[in-house]
Amino acid sequence: MANYVAVDWGTTSFRLWLIGEKGTIIGESRSREGMTTARETGFAAVLDKHLAEVGAPDDAPVIMCGMVGAKQGWVEAGYIDVPARLTDISGAAVGVPGLSRDVRILPGLAQRDVNSADVMRGEETQLLGCAEKMKSSDCLIAMPGTHSKWVRVVRQEVLGFSTFMTGELFDVISEQSILQHAVKDSAGFDGANPTFLAALHAAYKEPELATNRLFSIRARGLLFSLAPTDAEATLSGMMIGLELAGALKQAPKDTPVILVASGKLRGLYEAAFHRLGIQSSTIDADDAVRRGLSQAARDIWQFDEGAAT
Amino acid sequence: MANYVAVDWGTTSFRLWLIGEKGTIIGESRSREGMTTARETGFAAVLDKHLAEVGAPDDAPVIMCGMVGAKQGWVEAGYIDVPARLTDISGAAVGVPGLSRDVRILPGLAQRDVNSADVMRGEETQLLGCAEKMKSSDCLIAMPGTHSKWVRVVRQEVLGFSTFMTGELFDVISEQSILQHAVKDSAGFDGANPTFLAALHAAYKEPELATNRLFSIRARGLLFSLAPTDAEATLSGMMIGLELAGALKQAPKDTPVILVASGKLRGLYEAAFHRLGIQSSTIDADDAVRRGLSQAARDIWQFDEGAAT
Repeated sequence: MANYVAVDWGTTSFRLWLIGEKGTIIGESRSREGMTTARETGFAAVLDKHLAEVGAPDDAPVIMCGMVGAKQGWVEAGYIDVPARLTDISGAAVGVPGLSRDVRILPGLAQRDVNSADVMRGEETQLLGCAEKMKSSDCLIAMPGTHSKWVRVVRQEVLGFSTFMTGELFDVISEQSILQHAVKDSAGFDGANPTFLAALHAAYKEPELATNRLFSIRARGLLFSLAPTDAEATLSGMMIGLELAGALKQAPKDTPVILVASGKLRGLYEAAFHRLGIQSSTIDADDAVRRGLSQAARDIWQFDEGAAT
Repeated sequence: MANYVAVDWGTTSFRLWLIGEKGTIIGESRSREGMTTARETGFAAVLDKHLAEVGAPDDAPVIMCGMVGAKQGWVEAGYIDVPARLTDISGAAVGVPGLSRDVRILPGLAQRDVNSADVMRGEETQLLGCAEKMKSSDCLIAMPGTHSKWVRVVRQEVLGFSTFMTGELFDVISEQSILQHAVKDSAGFDGANPTFLAALHAAYKEPELATNRLFSIRARGLLFSLAPTDAEATLSGMMIGLELAGALKQAPKDTPVILVASGKLRGLYEAAFHRLGIQSSTIDADDAVRRGLSQAARDIWQFDEGAAT
């Protein structure tokens, strides 16, 4: 029997799960109908289509997270301010009015300090999904991506967080800067690549040389015929090393890191932590968001599912 | 009487001076016919047009610098390796074959160390133009721009140099990243702007937080309605502060800095040095390149001009 529906609705992607007794996944539906598309075609229409696809009962409530709750989304779900307890997130969910079904959107988190202003939307639900994996009472949660988030959680309370523009900078530098010629035709690389690891270590040790090392990729192309794959691995290692130099200073040395990531980024960050001697454990990013939505559903509608999936 | 012709031929600009007795400027001609244009229309045709414009005598030799000497330029002038004496630059000028006139192109400088590979082309001539202003036997020459160059010169010898991609990153971030919305409609700012100076200082002190502070510009827009002008001033201050954090480590503390710059950048870097308590003097970038070309002409053709202009 279906209990509720969980939806992760980002800028360019839509994912829905139909969840039953004890958190079993009964059905799943995904598409590229993110916020950008849904603003054109209608949020309710997109949601209804996917609900029909998995055969969701008419009375199953829906919990959602992501850009669907942004100002440009369906209904603005705002931000709750840090410091905040993880359980505060579910409590601040905002209902979508005018529907026959109970549909709620989780809020983002905001850090309203003018000297370290920051926001997240979507990642707070991943955090909620990691809560029971936080074995240490003090940990740093790393969520790499276009805008990598690093969150300090102490005894289930979010003390603060920092976003690093790593992924977006990697993209604009590889596609729009003079380095586009150097990285074009890269064959791809992974975390075992020694060029990636060397660049990572160098940027971590000397973050102040970041924009110099970027130009050096160009110069190595001219003077040493640097291969495109090595150029891309160097750029990636540098950007991640620069992020880690800043992010790891946000907590006391040796605070355990929980990495929330999937796919290639998971491999790169795991290799990076290993290279730098940083203790970490990994939670799959897709699992984390679904677990977080389930946690919120249990908090809001008091489902008794037993163990989380 | 005209002695020689000096040409600064970059990627997108062409500047020519006709120089007479004692270094007097007899004529000047400028256009947007940089290397990119000249590759289409012909280098010789562009040069001849400008020579005719200033009425250069048929026997006046021509000294040139810049991208005209790159692999994609007119004749490749290569690089000389550092460490190199400033006087080595003139000695390595390459002649353009097949012309009735003596036309030579100055080489660039290369740092062939795989861990700090670097190149410059055009800036070496500005260095030559600064030589007689280097009152200290040990100085750092700062040449800010798209690719800012920092050069360590000790007793007229270039020991090494570092390029920082500051200007190019500023451009791609303001035009292509999520921050484009934050900086759009900026009214402009100068070195006296307190937001610029605060961002500069913060990035200089904590360069490891560079990509975090970038995202913070976005977050301050959402949470505190940061004005576009302040957003642009913050981005600029951050990028320059990050550069200075790395560049100033390339020489012993309190090594005097010579700034070679013009226009807005000159004002921003002078304000930055003042804010950080760094001793500096300034040479106009346009003057420096012309003085450098004149120095090379004197070295090559033994003109006795007396004092440089």
